[in-house]
Amino acid sequence: MRTLHHWKLDPFGRTVRAALGEKKLEFDSVTETPWAPGEVLAKSDPGGAGPVLVFGGETVSVGARATVEYLDETSPEPALFPGNPAERAEARRLLDWFDRKFEPEAGAPIRAEKLAKRMQGGGGPDMELMRAAREAVRWHLDYVAYLAESRDWLAGRRFSAADLAVAAHLSALDYLGEIPWADFESAKSWYVRIKSRPCFRPILADMIPGSPPPSYYADLDF
Amino acid sequence: MRTLHHWKLDPFGRTVRAALGEKKLEFDSVTETPWAPGEVLAKSDPGGAGPVLVFGGETVSVGARATVEYLDETSPEPALFPGNPAERAEARRLLDWFDRKFEPEAGAPIRAEKLAKRMQGGGGPDMELMRAAREAVRWHLDYVAYLAESRDWLAGRRFSAADLAVAAHLSALDYLGEIPWADFESAKSWYVRIKSRPCFRPILADMIPGSPPPSYYADLDF
Repeated sequence: MRTLHHWKLDPFGRTVRAALGEKKLEFDSVTETPWAPGEVLAKSDPGGAGPVLVFGGETVSVGARATVEYLDETSPEPALFPGNPAERAEARRLLDWFDRKFEPEAGAPIRAEKLAKRMQGGGGPDMELMRAAREAVRWHLDYVAYLAESRDWLAGRRFSAADLAVAAHLSALDYLGEIPWADFESAKSWYVRIKSRPCFRPILADMIPGSPPPSYYADLDF
Repeated sequence: MRTLHHWKLDPFGRTVRAALGEKKLEFDSVTETPWAPGEVLAKSDPGGAGPVLVFGGETVSVGARATVEYLDETSPEPALFPGNPAERAEARRLLDWFDRKFEPEAGAPIRAEKLAKRMQGGGGPDMELMRAAREAVRWHLDYVAYLAESRDWLAGRRFSAADLAVAAHLSALDYLGEIPWADFESAKSWYVRIKSRPCFRPILADMIPGSPPPSYYADLDF
């Protein structure tokens, strides 16, 4: 049996959980907290939040970048990088964009300031950091809206890992009430389509003790 | 014919140039500067430094993450992700590590403070930022040394894209004299092996006007 070590609010863990769900691959979930990692997480991804995929007692893949590709290689259907090489390149470009731009500019600082700091007894959020991160959220949402308006799915004509990963990144901030959907209607319409996929159900059921999500977080019609 | 738009000191551009070289794929090079991008770069990677791969007048892939995979799909030999799925996952884990940890903690701040700022008339480096980034360089070099000591190549028994990408990241700082090789002998021995590959020759011949590299930068025996 597969086991996935992940933190519930980590966008990379959410991406892999959604990918496993799309492929209908069952797995046991081990919930981690990045600042108090268990033995497997500490050993396989020192200083990181995983996710770590374990199979038959062995770590087979660490991180969303490696693991989504691993799953697509070992369980090819349905393909998460469908189409021709240029279409696959476009999906990976968007993964790169969200992992290397959205995450450090928007996702990581908001989760750190609004949630992780408090969970570790570190006091209230730095409002200057929050302001800059919220501005970045809006900038990236504008890009998602543009893609959603001009294409069937974010990377083009086909549903891909880019849709899962972007939705995973956004969902982790949506849990904290930090996505201003009302100002980005076409991004919202696209996100409703992702939310309604069965692979996203466990993510919408996530609950961090002491930090419940806003009421609309799990609603398909919000 | 292929054209690659890239900045000479960008580690992502260097990764793709090395990958093209390993596969013996010829290409025309268009040198870009990220803060004064040409039309192709500005359109294909807004706010970024590319690299952008153009084929038959069309952008086919943007960024190293997408482009290395694209090249491995369209020109499979020699494989840059060889071995079984777990070996490939380990190579991609290391790419992710360097792209998402080394680059923001060490590579990007040092290039920005030491070179890009001056090239844009922005004054001298912020020594506090430099100190933190140099400490990160040592921390990551320690990890490279550990991998080089315990494995044939960084990701395991086989040469892979991880070797090219890590060498590309380090080489961009080596150009600026910022890699303390003497303190990391096994990392240095591994880097000598990469430097001696034909794919790395054009990278070692790079020259930024007004900012020549240290004398040992292109030496195979340094």
